[in-house]
Amino acid sequence: MRLVVIGGVAAGMSAASRARQADANLEIVVLEKSKHVSYGACGLPYFVEGRVRSLRQLQVHSREFFQEERDIAVRLDAEVTSVSPARREVVLAGGERIVFDRLILTTGARRDCKSISGADQPHVFSVDTWNGAERLEEHLRTANPLRAIILGAGYIGLETAEALRARGLQVQIWEASKDVLGRSDPWLTEIVRKQLEQFRVELRLGAAATSIPSADVVILACGLTPNTRIAAEAGVELGNSGAIRVSDRMETSIPGIYAAGDCIETTHLVSGRPVWFPLGTTANKTGRVAGAAAAGLYDRFPGIVGTSIARVCGLGIASTGLSPEQAKQEGFDPVPVQIEALDRARYFRGKPTRIQLTADRRGRLLGGTVIGESGVEGRINVLATALTHRMNAGDFLHLDLAYAPPFSNVWDPLLIAARQLVKLLN
Amino acid sequence: MRLVVIGGVAAGMSAASRARQADANLEIVVLEKSKHVSYGACGLPYFVEGRVRSLRQLQVHSREFFQEERDIAVRLDAEVTSVSPARREVVLAGGERIVFDRLILTTGARRDCKSISGADQPHVFSVDTWNGAERLEEHLRTANPLRAIILGAGYIGLETAEALRARGLQVQIWEASKDVLGRSDPWLTEIVRKQLEQFRVELRLGAAATSIPSADVVILACGLTPNTRIAAEAGVELGNSGAIRVSDRMETSIPGIYAAGDCIETTHLVSGRPVWFPLGTTANKTGRVAGAAAAGLYDRFPGIVGTSIARVCGLGIASTGLSPEQAKQEGFDPVPVQIEALDRARYFRGKPTRIQLTADRRGRLLGGTVIGESGVEGRINVLATALTHRMNAGDFLHLDLAYAPPFSNVWDPLLIAARQLVKLLN
Repeated sequence: MRLVVIGGVAAGMSAASRARQADANLEIVVLEKSKHVSYGACGLPYFVEGRVRSLRQLQVHSREFFQEERDIAVRLDAEVTSVSPARREVVLAGGERIVFDRLILTTGARRDCKSISGADQPHVFSVDTWNGAERLEEHLRTANPLRAIILGAGYIGLETAEALRARGLQVQIWEASKDVLGRSDPWLTEIVRKQLEQFRVELRLGAAATSIPSADVVILACGLTPNTRIAAEAGVELGNSGAIRVSDRMETSIPGIYAAGDCIETTHLVSGRPVWFPLGTTANKTGRVAGAAAAGLYDRFPGIVGTSIARVCGLGIASTGLSPEQAKQEGFDPVPVQIEALDRARYFRGKPTRIQLTADRRGRLLGGTVIGESGVEGRINVLATALTHRMNAGDFLHLDLAYAPPFSNVWDPLLIAARQLVKLLN
Repeated sequence: MRLVVIGGVAAGMSAASRARQADANLEIVVLEKSKHVSYGACGLPYFVEGRVRSLRQLQVHSREFFQEERDIAVRLDAEVTSVSPARREVVLAGGERIVFDRLILTTGARRDCKSISGADQPHVFSVDTWNGAERLEEHLRTANPLRAIILGAGYIGLETAEALRARGLQVQIWEASKDVLGRSDPWLTEIVRKQLEQFRVELRLGAAATSIPSADVVILACGLTPNTRIAAEAGVELGNSGAIRVSDRMETSIPGIYAAGDCIETTHLVSGRPVWFPLGTTANKTGRVAGAAAAGLYDRFPGIVGTSIARVCGLGIASTGLSPEQAKQEGFDPVPVQIEALDRARYFRGKPTRIQLTADRRGRLLGGTVIGESGVEGRINVLATALTHRMNAGDFLHLDLAYAPPFSNVWDPLLIAARQLVKLLN
């Protein structure tokens, strides 16, 4: 019995490892088109920044580790060009054919820049892959560029802006939509704009590039698209989001073929709808579930609530659930509040935390954003857990959250926001 | 219509304020036996430490604020000696009688040291009240004591140990039971013991004092007991825990008489049983619910999950739910795991976080402890929210928690612990 996994980064290696755990006798082959497996792509902006000294630091396990410790065969430079479900085989770029009994697709996502002419010039980079980040970092060291333009104000764009400022470049961000972080939230966008401004990063909204703008360095951080060509050509169904549709066991529309990571869509537990929300955490989790399923175990992935976090020029910015505008689009009647409160006692150097908390008119929490210098990840995670359980604002107010002066305030900023919401809803 | 509130610290002032919010016409009188209202008692150890310069800094609002801004009459030095439900009146120490239509008891808790002879000596202190902390701090400044013994290794005892070390004293802690923090958890106790040792604080377990030991300063941080005398003598029912039994609206067994804060018992949402678990956060919340109820509004407090946090010689130590031993006592079949993992990426100075996570054999999460230098409050709060919703370990593993390298790891330490648990349970 042979399991073939296409892709060897987060989802792929999680899937292979979980399958091995579940079945010691399975033959497992991972096909990775690049020369690198199992690295933390979320750390790439910090390599560009110079904080991560070597890309090796981002590697979780080496190819040899997988081969020797987990009996997982990893082939590098192995680009799959097509999959034949009927013949149960994959075809590599060189023409080689490899048969499989079970297949897991973890083909990831890419920057789709067809609409931007000149994207193949040597001063144009992306920070999504080992090779891309390596090439950019070398360019920064050797060509001493002065002016950078980043296309896209998603988290990779914002993190890279900070990284390039840290290396002394002038930085502009061009974002095609009117909001940052793909969140449709003017409140959040304004806070991010001001924060960037303090670090002399200019944010241009509604600035859709049709050709590569004039600068010493251009970063492609827009147009992220799931890699679905191989899947679609093999007859695997895609969802409305454009990503691969899977069951909660990560099985595609073709039995025995599974998919995980940045190429699949998943269920948004607040809206109840399929969404494409590619992130490393979800890639690892869905990879595990796909690996379990491919090895015959039962496991399921229920979905996400849309949690994300980024450091933007020193400030922690995290969101979960739906923004007020997104909630409206999903048919809710959103009531948002925005508060500012100290994240802990003043005599423990408490700093202001800003929170936006949104509930439906009938009380159900729909989403929130937490912004501050510390405690941001903890607070957004509490909210993410609450959204997972469809909490309403009134019950949220009674959560038994930890308090001592070095850590919080007797009314945690989250609870202050919930109290405001409850007042508004009554 | 007159509401009388006995006690003017956290629960009492929350109750009075909430009642005012709910009913602008109610006459509200707060009777406080000391000279101080509305202060954050949890900050008192930090006043002793010297970090809080003046006790005024711990005052949330002044008596004048309540009078003028909220039309709440606050009487200081007003000690209630008895309550007559039949006559609807309270009697003050001087003999004065005050009638009420609704009454809220927030009589708090005290150190009951009857079993320790000599507790009334001038070098014996407690850090639970404004006056106690003030007296201790003055003694430290003027008498230059060298050796301190703290009776009790609850969070007040541990926080005070750190405070006294910061002021240069030699410190011993005597704890009557075999564990710290009232948690029946040898794993936790050992970690705390080692941490104290590093700060040259000696922890003696199983050391029950029957008389005040020989030292320059002795701190009473043991024997905390709910103040129920007035309630009990008035015929208000007490629960098995010894604290006042209330409904989820904070009504006592006598209609129209409510209670909140450190003098009541509440439901532990993991065990489902009434417990006495006095904390400032719960005092504020139950105060609000009592205030709403006394003003005729419907609100309810569902209970707690037993969350607490303390800084112990620089280390954050937080628990929620039941320890393995407590879980066994409650009839569960607990399966605990202990893990250690970095709290964020190594290149963001990730520090080790230790987590104990306990589930019932059938999968339901029962409790956990998080110990580390940062991110402790956030992680324990996620767990507290999960316990509130009776999550099992497998579902917990799929929580959509935030990840970016400055804040966490792609597998949050909490999820690593859950993964271990799931492995053990299968």
